[in-house]
Formats: sequence, structure tokens, C-alpha cells
Amino acid sequence: MTAGRPAAALLITGQELLLGLVSDANTRFLAHELDALGIELRRVSIVGDEHEEIAAGLRELAGHDLVVTSGGLGPTHDDRTVEAVAEVAGAELVLDEDLLTTIAAITAAFARRRGTDPALNRDGDRKQAMVPRGATVIPPAGTAPGLLLALGAGHVLVLPGPPRELATVWGRALELEPVAALRERAGTLLRHTLRVYGVGEPAVARAFAAAGGDAAGTRTTICARALEVEVTIRAEPERKAGLEALVAGLREQLGEAIYSEDESPLSEHVLVLLRGRGLHLAVAESCTAGLVAARLADIPGSSDVLLGGVIAYADEVKRDLLGVPAALLAEYGAVSAEVARAMAEGARAATGADVGVAVTGVAGPGGGSERKPVGLVYLHVSAPGLERGQEHHLIGNRAQVREWATVAALQLVRTTVSQITPS
Amino acid sequence: MTAGRPAAALLITGQELLLGLVSDANTRFLAHELDALGIELRRVSIVGDEHEEIAAGLRELAGHDLVVTSGGLGPTHDDRTVEAVAEVAGAELVLDEDLLTTIAAITAAFARRRGTDPALNRDGDRKQAMVPRGATVIPPAGTAPGLLLALGAGHVLVLPGPPRELATVWGRALELEPVAALRERAGTLLRHTLRVYGVGEPAVARAFAAAGGDAAGTRTTICARALEVEVTIRAEPERKAGLEALVAGLREQLGEAIYSEDESPLSEHVLVLLRGRGLHLAVAESCTAGLVAARLADIPGSSDVLLGGVIAYADEVKRDLLGVPAALLAEYGAVSAEVARAMAEGARAATGADVGVAVTGVAGPGGGSERKPVGLVYLHVSAPGLERGQEHHLIGNRAQVREWATVAALQLVRTTVSQITPS
Repeated sequence: MTAGRPAAALLITGQELLLGLVSDANTRFLAHELDALGIELRRVSIVGDEHEEIAAGLRELAGHDLVVTSGGLGPTHDDRTVEAVAEVAGAELVLDEDLLTTIAAITAAFARRRGTDPALNRDGDRKQAMVPRGATVIPPAGTAPGLLLALGAGHVLVLPGPPRELATVWGRALELEPVAALRERAGTLLRHTLRVYGVGEPAVARAFAAAGGDAAGTRTTICARALEVEVTIRAEPERKAGLEALVAGLREQLGEAIYSEDESPLSEHVLVLLRGRGLHLAVAESCTAGLVAARLADIPGSSDVLLGGVIAYADEVKRDLLGVPAALLAEYGAVSAEVARAMAEGARAATGADVGVAVTGVAGPGGGSERKPVGLVYLHVSAPGLERGQEHHLIGNRAQVREWATVAALQLVRTTVSQITPS
Repeated sequence: MTAGRPAAALLITGQELLLGLVSDANTRFLAHELDALGIELRRVSIVGDEHEEIAAGLRELAGHDLVVTSGGLGPTHDDRTVEAVAEVAGAELVLDEDLLTTIAAITAAFARRRGTDPALNRDGDRKQAMVPRGATVIPPAGTAPGLLLALGAGHVLVLPGPPRELATVWGRALELEPVAALRERAGTLLRHTLRVYGVGEPAVARAFAAAGGDAAGTRTTICARALEVEVTIRAEPERKAGLEALVAGLREQLGEAIYSEDESPLSEHVLVLLRGRGLHLAVAESCTAGLVAARLADIPGSSDVLLGGVIAYADEVKRDLLGVPAALLAEYGAVSAEVARAMAEGARAATGADVGVAVTGVAGPGGGSERKPVGLVYLHVSAPGLERGQEHHLIGNRAQVREWATVAALQLVRTTVSQITPS
């Protein structure tokens, strides 16, 4: 915490969050955005849909420079955020005629597409066009507008709940004067990210200490995730030299374990490496059953690298589609280094890909044995003139074993392909 | 909100949440657990790791019958939850010798496995064995114990942050006297869930109104998720007849659109239907690139139904592994009803599965055209003596189009296989 930086809080509304029906998708997005602007997020409150719950939550957060709310802007009576914000801000609700015209046009277009009567929307349109007097209206991405108004010594920014609408209206709010002024006040916060694979969190913490820690005025977080450790170093602009020295020290301590110095996903790193070498990839997945390919296909434009592959859950599919010899399956079993290798080679042969990656393992909870316990996973990457196999013993439930096996497989593709000289 | 039910709040700690580095995984779990016990979750606060932030957050929540905290129980100085809780509860920290022995044994075993010096853990062990005087210690699932102690007129339950440890310690806490007393006070809350597919949220809201709404003292939430609407009806035991009448009314209004009256995942429904008919399934996935198979493989024991399949991202893979005629690809394009059908049949032929499901579409953001815009997805299910094709126009970003296509594909398998008489 730095006293000088603008302080923010989030008020997330939605009874469905308090009932555990859905997960909150907006906090992480807004937290990351605020951090990137140098604005400190100090508190998140999640409350239900009742007027008094929202008002009480907002009153508690009113001391911050910026409070961002999400949700409760719909057309029905149980969407109460605007009323509650108006009450706490001491502003009466008034009909914004221009906004009503905008919203009515949007809902009429929806009604035409669905073949319903636009007149059914009249009450809802009007409800959504009621705004606290003095608020700045931010054009809607769906039907709900955003609102920005003064709250105590700071401001409250009211955003719709659906994540896509929230992100769009947030982007528009950044240009408004009070938010721009906060960004100006925040100035530049230097931030550098190092992502480490193959070294645990304690070892990274020791490397951080050996590199001098935060002695030069930096602020560092060390955060372990699925098989990787992310080190984020923040510094005020006048501490630039200190940040650079710490980064250099960490590079010296951790060497090749640092696989990325940006925030792009692992799958994107893998695709960039393959693309840079003109290589196509195919998968052969047993226990992960498509997760490796799906992770790569998350990235737009992945189709120039990823050809596809085979989900070989049953032994017959390993044999018939990947050409894994029945004798190999009988001798070593489906979960073995030998079968992983044959699967990777089979993926290349079946698809014509340059590189094949195979995953076979025991995800659990059943199917384990003393010799092949739950969490045992074999990986193999087969590339032109080069191959790598790995055995992992992963500890976790079924979902974790499959998730970590997916990450480990992508990392094995990355480290293997890195050995190939770009053409 | 019902005044008579015990009220709970969550205090989630972790600077990494406020920086947007990770998503909070514990709120949804705890919210769902509390709801199942009939305890009302009224508020969630997310705060950083500083002593004063945690203490301030806890003070605000201290009026609840139960406050559950997560995180900040690690062995290092920047894990400060126990100190903050002790301060707010007015209890001094004391060393629990039995707990120290337990923790030392756990960390020594870890050290042996890793080949590090157990003496390095001594300070951390001792730190984790300091507990507020009078607290009940709940045995750790990792190295951090849970704690339960009085806070105002209620109690605070201190849980570790890692989701698996949290779930285990939570389960143990349920048996402790103050929590058991709350459960006793909560009594039984009746809860019934209806899950609806193929009908939008407004239509479900109209069906709810037509069925009498909450007039008979029920409390209903209607929650839209990826292509489905979940209706959850809650009632006090004395309102049982009202709940049953509402459920019957909704069944009458919504008919076959109700596909489930329990909370098990869609993929499990699909597996149960197939298993009950002795049918094996294979996938042929283009834009979803493995998500359909991976969703099915999420379920333990899915391997008796799911054989695997082909991820056919490239046209050559559609042709070579699924036998889609090159002429069909040339004439209709990869995103077409004709190719979806050939892919589904190809998945059956290649794997010997009884049922094949195919997905091909434009996930975006690139690759769309006027005739085949982003969001256009063709599905096909081929089963013995029966087949079904569907065209969807999905609106959303790449991840949403792929997610919704996955759900729609599983639903199409479900509705198609439902037509087959169980053997």
C-alpha cells in the first residue's frame, strides 16, 4: 500500500453469488485493470440484491476515491442498484429523455428479432432511463447504461453485471473527466512480470531474497499457480533503477526457469514458438481428453499451427487411430512411457503434423494401482530429429491432475521446440 | 432474507485477489455449502494481507452468527489472519504444544520427501502453532489448522486458503458444537432445483408467474447460465405444500424443457443416458477442439461410455481421420450442416462408437464472412437409426461461442439419445 496512490473499492451485487449459484467473473477483470492504471484496489464487497444491502455496502466504501459497482441494472423491479446509489449519493432520480430514446431503440430492435411486442418493454425502458440527477451517463453496451457520479470526496462508477457489457462500459468510463483525473494522479506505476516454470515457490522466494528483495523500494508479489510461479514487481517511477536491478538479480538467480516476461498465456508462447519455426502440431490425449488442444485453440489464429489430433480415451482408439501396437499396450499398459511415445508418433503420422504431443495418465479417483497410482502421468513430445518424454507424479483431485497434466504437456512442447533452430 | 435463519459472512483474504492475479475459488464453494445448511450468507468481503485490513474487515462482519475467513494461515510473517482474528476477538495468542507436534511431523515428512533440512521449518511450525486462547483447533489438511472461536455474539471460523485444504477443514468444522448448534437452529430448508434448456429467462419468468409465483411463501431464484436457466425454489418446512404446488405448476408450464431436477452436471446426464442404453460415444470437434470430450471426461468413470474421438481443426484432418469427402468440404465448406453430418458419421466409423457428435463453426474473432458469420455453429449427432442436425447463431466472444457450442452439443446428444429406448 502506498498512501499517495488513488484508492478504489468494488461493490459486486447479486444474490446468485451469495447462494453459490455462479462465480463472480468481474472482480478479477476490474482488479487487473485498476492495477494497470496504478489505482490501488483496497476492498471488494459482495452483497445481495436488496436496496438496503446495496446502500449499506456502498456507505461503507464511500471513503474511496473510486467505487465501482457491478450488477443490478436490469429492467425489472428487483434490479435496485441505481436507486440505492442515488440514495447514498443524495441525488434524486430523474428521467433522462435522450437515454430513454436510446434504450427504446435497442430493446425495439431486440423485440423485432425475437418477434415479440416492443410495447412490452415500455416499463423496463423507462426504469433503465431513470438516472441520479447530475450523473454522467455512459452509453450502454447491452441495454443498461453506465453511470458516473460524485460520492463523498470521490466518485462511484455504476457498471452492468454481464462481463462483456461491464468491460465495454468500463472502457468508455476511462475517458471521462473524473476517472481521467484519477489516472493522471496515479501517474505511471512501473510493473514487471517474471513467470517461472520448474522451480517451486520457496525456491523463488529464496532467489528473491538473494537478489536483494524489496530493499530498493520495489513491491513484489510471488504467486504460485498451476505448476508455475508468477513474480510481479511494482515500483514508482523514481525507483526504476531498483526495479531493473531486482529483475537482473532474479534473472541471474533463476536463469532458464524464467520462461516469460510478459502476461500472455502459456498456450500463446507455444504457438509463437511453433509458428516461428513453421511447425504444425497435433495432439494425442488420453486422460486430458482434449484439454491440451482446447487450450491452444483458446488463442485466436491458432489454426495455422494446430492441425488437431486424437482423443484416445479407449485403448482401441489408441491402436486404431494412433497406430499404437496392441503388443505395446499389453506389455506396458496404456499408462506408460512407451505408449506415450507411440501416441506422440502416432499423432504425427495420422495428421502429417511436424510435432506430436501425447498425454496418458491416471486422473482418478478410480483406476489407480500400487504400481500406477492416481496422479501418474506420462508425457511425450515427438518432433523432427528430437523427442522428449516425462513422468509426472501429480497430487490432487481429478480436475487438478488433468489441469496440471495439460500445463506440463504445453511446457514440454515449449522446452522441446525451443531446442529447434528457427528456420 | 428470513430474519429467523442464522446469518453468515465471508472474509476472503489475499492481496493477489485485489491485484487481479487470481480468481477467488472459495466463495462459491462456501456459499453453496452455507445455503445447503439453511444458513444465509449475507456478505462477502475481500481484503488484502495486512493486519489492519483483515482486522477492519472482521470488525465490520462481527455482527453475524458465523464469519468464515479464508487464507493468510501460512508459515511466513506475511500470513497475518490469526493475529488479526485474535486481536478482534480479544484473545491473546498462545503456543499450542500438541498442535506444534502435529505440524512439525507434517513439515518434517515434506522435508524428507524433498531432501531439505527439517530445521528450516522450525520458525514456520511455531508460527502456525500459535492460536488464540480458547480457540478450538481443527486438524490441518495441509500444514495450516482451522480455528473456531467466539466473536461477539457469534463465532469466527478460520480456514486455510488453498481450496482443497479449505474444503477438508470446513467438513471437519461442521461437527463442532457451535457450528452444529447453528445447523440445528437453521433446521431444514427445503430446496428444489429445476433446470431448463431451450427456453429463455423471460419465458421462464412468465411460467413462474403463471404457476403462481412465490405467493405460497416460497422463495425462488431464476438464474440464466450458458444456454440454460436454473430455477431454485426454497421454502421453510411448513411451506412444503406450497413448494410442491409451485414445482407441479412449473412442470406443467415448462414440460420437456425441464431436463433435470437435480444439480448434477449436464455431462453426467449425458453419460447416464448413454450408459443406460449400453451406447459408446465418440466426438468429432472442430471449433470446440476437444471441449466436448473434456467436459464428459470431467466425470469420474466416463471411460465406460466415452471412447474418444478426433479433433479436426484442419480440413485435412477432417478428410483423413474422419473420412469427410474432399468434395463435400469444397462444395459446402468446413462450416456447414453437410460437413457436420459427415464428421459425426466419421467419428462413429473411425472409433466403432455407437453415437458420434460433431461440432464445426466460426469461433471468431477472425474467419467470419457475410454468409458464415462469427458465431455460426453446426452440430450433428449420429446414432443407430437416428440422427439430428442443428444450426446455431451464437453471440459472444471466442470463448463464449466455444463454450455455448459445447453445451449445445451435449444437449443435442441428450435429446437425441433420449429418443432411443433403453435396452
